[in-house]
Amino acid sequence: MAKLAFNISMSLDGFIAGPDPSEADPLGKGGEQLHEWAFGLKAWREPHGRDGGEENESTPVFEELWGNAGASVMGRNMFGGDGPWGDDPWNGWWGDDPPFEMPVFVITHHEREPLVLADTTFTFVTDGIQSALDQAKDAAGDKDVALGGGADVAQQYLAAGLIDTMQIHLVPVLLGRGTRLFDNLSGTDFGLEETRVIEAPGVTHLSFRVR
Amino acid sequence: MAKLAFNISMSLDGFIAGPDPSEADPLGKGGEQLHEWAFGLKAWREPHGRDGGEENESTPVFEELWGNAGASVMGRNMFGGDGPWGDDPWNGWWGDDPPFEMPVFVITHHEREPLVLADTTFTFVTDGIQSALDQAKDAAGDKDVALGGGADVAQQYLAAGLIDTMQIHLVPVLLGRGTRLFDNLSGTDFGLEETRVIEAPGVTHLSFRVR
Repeated sequence: MAKLAFNISMSLDGFIAGPDPSEADPLGKGGEQLHEWAFGLKAWREPHGRDGGEENESTPVFEELWGNAGASVMGRNMFGGDGPWGDDPWNGWWGDDPPFEMPVFVITHHEREPLVLADTTFTFVTDGIQSALDQAKDAAGDKDVALGGGADVAQQYLAAGLIDTMQIHLVPVLLGRGTRLFDNLSGTDFGLEETRVIEAPGVTHLSFRVR
Repeated sequence: MAKLAFNISMSLDGFIAGPDPSEADPLGKGGEQLHEWAFGLKAWREPHGRDGGEENESTPVFEELWGNAGASVMGRNMFGGDGPWGDDPWNGWWGDDPPFEMPVFVITHHEREPLVLADTTFTFVTDGIQSALDQAKDAAGDKDVALGGGADVAQQYLAAGLIDTMQIHLVPVLLGRGTRLFDNLSGTDFGLEETRVIEAPGVTHLSFRVR
């Protein structure tokens, strides 16, 4: 049975995006710092058509993120918001060749036909997180389902007890403002078991099993 | 010159105390979990007159916390609140033989004569965080000044750029509610350099230099 594996980069003060995200700056002010550990890797740069980059302790962590995943779920904001869908459809923030290269299920309130961009198919799910997870598990086969964000969808999956494993890429910056990952979780009751800690340049990768 | 070294235990979701702290439950609901990594150590139990306890990767971390400190600063809530000071003075949450065994400077709005309890002297400072730090540095000699909490005082020292090193004992629990460490810091601008990561049972010790 496919597991739901949640992965996200977070600042030490708990933010996964800076304030005031926009199409030009989807990660919000200062939010790019949270992903620099990945942007500097050869393993990230090569599939994005860029030269250079380094190999370090983050390389195997980055490679297993996508290697284990057969499908993905995300919230509409991570896809790119609802946008001006219509004659001139908005295809999200990921360009013509999104890096997912697997079925992606976008949780939204707006019905829309599936969107195929190169090797990635976005399916828009309007009947909730459980439905999106069920569809993603079917699509994932014997691989896992990856959950990346945003915060609102991650909080819904956490509160519902549907997440099996969680990996926080903890970045030593303080953003001060933005979108908090762990919010609106008052009253949830579950335990975490830390299963792995990997120290790497500019990031500490913390893995947990969610009970 | 003595450095200001900030040390604190924090849940993965960023809380340093649970909700509804009281004299009977000063760490708030669920807050004790944040300190279990220390309570289980022989190095904690022995000076508290308790048998048993283990030695593990946290032992040297715990020992250096106090070994490097020549004085301490804390907020009034960490001391124990203002209490019913008067004929029946309130001596805080730390009992007749507080574990500090060094000069402690308590930042408060209420003037009070110094309080000597066994080997610990509490001096009450009413003219702000800089004054408390200056007095603590004088008292510390060639050792460091330890800052432990609470959140409000830590936030004031962080925002003022007065903290030299920070160690977060990150505990893999989600409290959901309580007192956040990193709050009210919007607009502060400083960098962190991660200098050490130690994985230990039930806690990850993350050390930073604050720039």
